[in-house]
Amino acid sequence: MSRRVGLWLIGGCGGVGSTAAIGLSLLAKGLTPSVGMVSALPLFADVDLDAPETFVVGGHDIRTARFVEAVRSLHERSGIFTSDQLRAAHDDLVAWGENIRPGTIIRAGSTISGMADRDSVAIVATAFEAIDRIQTDLTEFRDRHSLDQVVVINTASTEPEFAETDDHQSVQNLTAQLDREGESVLPASSLYAMAALEMGIPYVNFTPSVGASLPALDELARMRNVPYAGKDGKTGETLIKTVLAPMFVLRNLKVRSWVGHNILGAGDGRVLADPENKATKIRTKDAVLGSLLGYKAQSHVSIEYIESMDDWKTAWDHIHFEGFLGTKMMMQFTWQGCDSILAAPLVLDLARLTLLAQRRKESGVLRHLACFFKSPMGVEEHDFFIQNQMLVEYLMQAGARQ
Amino acid sequence: MSRRVGLWLIGGCGGVGSTAAIGLSLLAKGLTPSVGMVSALPLFADVDLDAPETFVVGGHDIRTARFVEAVRSLHERSGIFTSDQLRAAHDDLVAWGENIRPGTIIRAGSTISGMADRDSVAIVATAFEAIDRIQTDLTEFRDRHSLDQVVVINTASTEPEFAETDDHQSVQNLTAQLDREGESVLPASSLYAMAALEMGIPYVNFTPSVGASLPALDELARMRNVPYAGKDGKTGETLIKTVLAPMFVLRNLKVRSWVGHNILGAGDGRVLADPENKATKIRTKDAVLGSLLGYKAQSHVSIEYIESMDDWKTAWDHIHFEGFLGTKMMMQFTWQGCDSILAAPLVLDLARLTLLAQRRKESGVLRHLACFFKSPMGVEEHDFFIQNQMLVEYLMQAGARQ
Amino acid sequence: MSRRVGLWLIGGCGGVGSTAAIGLSLLAKGLTPSVGMVSALPLFADVDLDAPETFVVGGHDIRTARFVEAVRSLHERSGIFTSDQLRAAHDDLVAWGENIRPGTIIRAGSTISGMADRDSVAIVATAFEAIDRIQTDLTEFRDRHSLDQVVVINTASTEPEFAETDDHQSVQNLTAQLDREGESVLPASSLYAMAALEMGIPYVNFTPSVGASLPALDELARMRNVPYAGKDGKTGETLIKTVLAPMFVLRNLKVRSWVGHNILGAGDGRVLADPENKATKIRTKDAVLGSLLGYKAQSHVSIEYIESMDDWKTAWDHIHFEGFLGTKMMMQFTWQGCDSILAAPLVLDLARLTLLAQRRKESGVLRHLACFFKSPMGVEEHDFFIQNQMLVEYLMQAGARQ
Amino acid sequence: MSRRVGLWLIGGCGGVGSTAAIGLSLLAKGLTPSVGMVSALPLFADVDLDAPETFVVGGHDIRTARFVEAVRSLHERSGIFTSDQLRAAHDDLVAWGENIRPGTIIRAGSTISGMADRDSVAIVATAFEAIDRIQTDLTEFRDRHSLDQVVVINTASTEPEFAETDDHQSVQNLTAQLDREGESVLPASSLYAMAALEMGIPYVNFTPSVGASLPALDELARMRNVPYAGKDGKTGETLIKTVLAPMFVLRNLKVRSWVGHNILGAGDGRVLADPENKATKIRTKDAVLGSLLGYKAQSHVSIEYIESMDDWKTAWDHIHFEGFLGTKMMMQFTWQGCDSILAAPLVLDLARLTLLAQRRKESGVLRHLACFFKSPMGVEEHDFFIQNQMLVEYLMQAGARQ
Repeated sequence: MSRRVGLWLIGGCGGVGSTAAIGLSLLAKGLTPSVGMVSALPLFADVDLDAPETFVVGGHDIRTARFVEAVRSLHERSGIFTSDQLRAAHDDLVAWGENIRPGTIIRAGSTISGMADRDSVAIVATAFEAIDRIQTDLTEFRDRHSLDQVVVINTASTEPEFAETDDHQSVQNLTAQLDREGESVLPASSLYAMAALEMGIPYVNFTPSVGASLPALDELARMRNVPYAGKDGKTGETLIKTVLAPMFVLRNLKVRSWVGHNILGAGDGRVLADPENKATKIRTKDAVLGSLLGYKAQSHVSIEYIESMDDWKTAWDHIHFEGFLGTKMMMQFTWQGCDSILAAPLVLDLARLTLLAQRRKESGVLRHLACFFKSPMGVEEHDFFIQNQMLVEYLMQAGARQ
Repeated sequence: MSRRVGLWLIGGCGGVGSTAAIGLSLLAKGLTPSVGMVSALPLFADVDLDAPETFVVGGHDIRTARFVEAVRSLHERSGIFTSDQLRAAHDDLVAWGENIRPGTIIRAGSTISGMADRDSVAIVATAFEAIDRIQTDLTEFRDRHSLDQVVVINTASTEPEFAETDDHQSVQNLTAQLDREGESVLPASSLYAMAALEMGIPYVNFTPSVGASLPALDELARMRNVPYAGKDGKTGETLIKTVLAPMFVLRNLKVRSWVGHNILGAGDGRVLADPENKATKIRTKDAVLGSLLGYKAQSHVSIEYIESMDDWKTAWDHIHFEGFLGTKMMMQFTWQGCDSILAAPLVLDLARLTLLAQRRKESGVLRHLACFFKSPMGVEEHDFFIQNQMLVEYLMQAGARQ
Repeated sequence: MSRRVGLWLIGGCGGVGSTAAIGLSLLAKGLTPSVGMVSALPLFADVDLDAPETFVVGGHDIRTARFVEAVRSLHERSGIFTSDQLRAAHDDLVAWGENIRPGTIIRAGSTISGMADRDSVAIVATAFEAIDRIQTDLTEFRDRHSLDQVVVINTASTEPEFAETDDHQSVQNLTAQLDREGESVLPASSLYAMAALEMGIPYVNFTPSVGASLPALDELARMRNVPYAGKDGKTGETLIKTVLAPMFVLRNLKVRSWVGHNILGAGDGRVLADPENKATKIRTKDAVLGSLLGYKAQSHVSIEYIESMDDWKTAWDHIHFEGFLGTKMMMQFTWQGCDSILAAPLVLDLARLTLLAQRRKESGVLRHLACFFKSPMGVEEHDFFIQNQMLVEYLMQAGARQ
Repeated sequence: MSRRVGLWLIGGCGGVGSTAAIGLSLLAKGLTPSVGMVSALPLFADVDLDAPETFVVGGHDIRTARFVEAVRSLHERSGIFTSDQLRAAHDDLVAWGENIRPGTIIRAGSTISGMADRDSVAIVATAFEAIDRIQTDLTEFRDRHSLDQVVVINTASTEPEFAETDDHQSVQNLTAQLDREGESVLPASSLYAMAALEMGIPYVNFTPSVGASLPALDELARMRNVPYAGKDGKTGETLIKTVLAPMFVLRNLKVRSWVGHNILGAGDGRVLADPENKATKIRTKDAVLGSLLGYKAQSHVSIEYIESMDDWKTAWDHIHFEGFLGTKMMMQFTWQGCDSILAAPLVLDLARLTLLAQRRKESGVLRHLACFFKSPMGVEEHDFFIQNQMLVEYLMQAGARQ
């Protein structure tokens, strides 16, 4: 029987998740080119990556919306997808919508919780119970579709900031707290990570939330021999920052200040309008600059929820730099991108690359995926071209071995 | 006796040349940091490059203005340099101004010719005579200042386009035409190149003019065992283009159109307002994109002379690209830079690096300097980071050998 | 029987014309708000303007495309209109498409001529014959639909520049030349104007072409007691220019240079890519600034055809101005608009306002419509707010009189 | 003896105050044109306004810096003024520097207080004592220079927000609280206003602080027959907003969101980095939009202190609007201005116009000065062109009466 793999999306019916779903359907039918997918570059043609038609999609969500409703809403409000695309993907989206299960909102913050529909949230008393329910959903998905491999990717909204404690330093400490009633020892993003890793399912964190970024979960991944990656997909303003900043360094031009102002709408914007959730996001966006420059330049990043933007995001960046003889000069850029459209193909890349890594018996954090993330786990390097070179070298080797 | 080297600037009293001169003086006195100079990056600290205080400056110019007047005019019109900087460099600039000799305007186009002062132009009947005069000036400069090495760098304005013929295919053919009266077989930029190379003096073409880009001159350089480099300094809009375009390729985002509109004033702008001279410049700016993308995207580059800008240049670029599922998105940037301030430190870099290459017995075109040029001679690669890596590898090796 | 009026569009199946048609249909059905229509402002609620449902649409075109195909193509390439809008307007567009007649391409330039489909061009030997055919079409339209009034609006592409001669100075001179074979004494835009005015039908020139801007045609309009207006709809960059420039004047800030760079695709862009047609357009865009400022500032306007933009247009303007104590400062703006969407509601405004003027027995050029045009006929004033005040005063009076 | 008038600047040695001083000196000597001054427009040539040479400058400041040091620092850090200008104005600035007296910091917020030098602050126990000291300073200024008229203009940094109470509703209530020890019933800006008005000296509030905006102070002004005006000078982003927003209204284009992001450095930026002070500023910037549009569009204004900008300010505005048939379009602008250079000439305008009003026996708030302010006192109108028309009509009448 032919190979089948599962893509399980946390927050699956959000913009990114549902765009990944419609994209996968259209790619499988040969109705859209693979523009925007890094793993589809001709350079990587020899690498044994899963073809789009191999995938089945499922996921957790805290809203009752299904894929069909989600993509129609994106089409109407944000002007993406054509009527023909919606029609062609319709049956797949309906079928995959059947694989959506109620998500958990533990420690996701009040704004995310407020978006939840009552019937679509898993009501549980302890973290242990939440993990148990997630694993039941994953097992059932795998079994029903006879999947050879499954990958879990977190595409949910950003959670509030989370303080790591002694409880998160080892599997033993963490396990001891899972049964505790009251406030969960783990936020939702980490419950999903723990559930997946424990089952030997790779986990990718496309968001700035905690996810698998805890010593206890790293220990668990290595114990179970399973790879994971993250965090926070690098799709727009930060991508450009990690492309431009190295140029200033290599030309010995001194960046004096770098201001980035982002406006966006849609669900992601609504969640980021909550200062608690925004703080997490700004932290990962802002940390990048100092690392790239090697000195401290004044950096300011702001994100504002502007309803009329819907799924589009505009970033304005103002870079004030000093050149020869103390002369101050300026570069400004605006980036006008559609968040879901930019993120979804990278989600598919990460699914394919993580499944490949698991087949190659890799475990722990996948450092060669750094170029996909704003806060690449296990890697200090933020220079996009150096990060990309890491991916190229890995895949050249992977392609050659086959 | 301590080492002394000469920097001979064609068009020396223009914005770039005179900024290089004041910069060199202030660097030698320790009054300005080396911001903007690639060769001063900490990474290259072990490479044996000539210190600023080793340099003596001279050059050719077709105007009577001297360095002191040129930098004062830049200060007043364009707001660069401080009063303190002008004062501190004054004596050096006066002394170096004594080393300026009348330039040649053969085939430089009517706009450049119109800027010439009668007394500052070398009146000659043949190309041979022009070369002879240039060599006399260079010999006298070298002898008077007891220079160990000299480098000639072309920082003059852009010449009109020039058609290569059989005459330019070999030293023999070319030499046969030098005595011809009437229209010169070589434009001014190539006369300077030929004069220098024949004397064993390295030549760098910082402009889009022909310079040493003729088979006959390459043959001459190899015969005389002398290195050369060029062409067209990459300081602003094109630099950014060669930084950003690779990102679009690596993310598999399809550039549909890339429009660049440049406005600038000052002498360079005035010359580029002449359609004949502008055509040469636009050619080197525009060729870059197709090479970087690997496919044909619509590209438009325009340059307009806007008097009020003086030595400042603003480029507006509009990049229209297609992402996943056919969605069109946009990036725009503006670059507001001072041309002389951006170019001058690179001229100093090129002087130091070319003198090093000659000491290392290299000859012919210096491919490792590609990152400095819009149309790097001898190199097809336009990706700034790959070009830069070529320089780093060369200098790491050069540093290690010492 | 209820009142019915006809809107006859020259170039009817272009972007502007077909958007006006779909808009009229949707407005008549109450399916879209009147956003973008000046005549629908609450301020003018008391003025007796024709309601959308009163209109029947027809026109001339040189391509075989009909309204339905034109709007579908705009939807697919430029992302405007929703599927619901296309469906709702379908029957009206089919019906009105039956009213499209072959246009004339006399002296429209080779680029426009090259876009013509053979079967859709009226082949005629003389200007007289062309006018005769146009009048036959108009008469047949009026009779078949029992129209109380008809207005002709030119929304075709820009023609090449045209030199006025003695032939155009009076009706008598002009009439004497109409029978001449060979090159027509009038370009297409003026043939339409003459045909309409002679029939007592008002004519509005929404393009920079000549249209009714000839002394002979003004004489004709006054003889026939019919109003006309033009020229060149003010929809985007020039609109903003006429809004911002007065502010610089009133704040005594001295504009030193104003650069406008426009990129656009679609049919209009393709025609403007022809230097002959572009020259006409740039002239009307560029003349505005000197008049507004009252002194000569350097002004540069360029228009480039960028295919990927489709019906969208982006203008980048860079305004360099001098403030107190000689300090230079800058303002830049980008305008990202959809040409058809901006223009179509103004075409409807002009139709309603011109029909009103005719009912009010006005004849000759309608000066109070200046705020709609880049080159307002009969008015030197370019300040948008002063122009708008002229419209407001006229309509307040018109409203009061009823 | 010839007429002499006094300009008393609160925060006199800040950027705006010291630029007004050097400007006045250079204007009086005929060394700079009156570019940037509204009152110098040819239109107002017949109005009897005080010539620059009539003015003597003095003021209060909480720092020990004098005019000479302030303008030199602006020159060095922000690149404004030429060396020649500094030299020519030197003696006037030294002389006027002698007229600077210690300011008060009551309720100015901790950031402003932290900038104060110990010796330059008036230490007082009660509001009454503070007013008394201010009046002593003003009286001494008037007497020493034999001034015919004096005007006080507040150009100090923005104070924290202030809550109006019953104490501020009448002169009687207010006076009863002046003697109270502990927290002052009035912030610094209002103490200056009260001191001036009580002496019959006109007061202009160029800042968003409270100043004279209290019922009790309005009552006082009318009792003393003295005019006042304010508040918050309209120099840059808000000026453009009040120019552009009316255009959207008149074209029936529906603004969906308007985002303004401002970055600035210098003293003003440092004070606005304090959230308490920033809140006051944002309030006046943000209120404008709703009033202009007549409906609620999402509006976001942010201000960030970016040290490298020094006295320059860049605003980026993103306007998202809906046109015909629901199509969303965008306009963006950047404004790159030097705050002091934009504000200073308006301060001189306000001085001249307020002194004129007093000579014309006007009292209370000067409504015809609305075009100068972000929050024009006594006027609801924010449309710049309507505001400007109010000024023109007033001055036409004033000119005619003479």
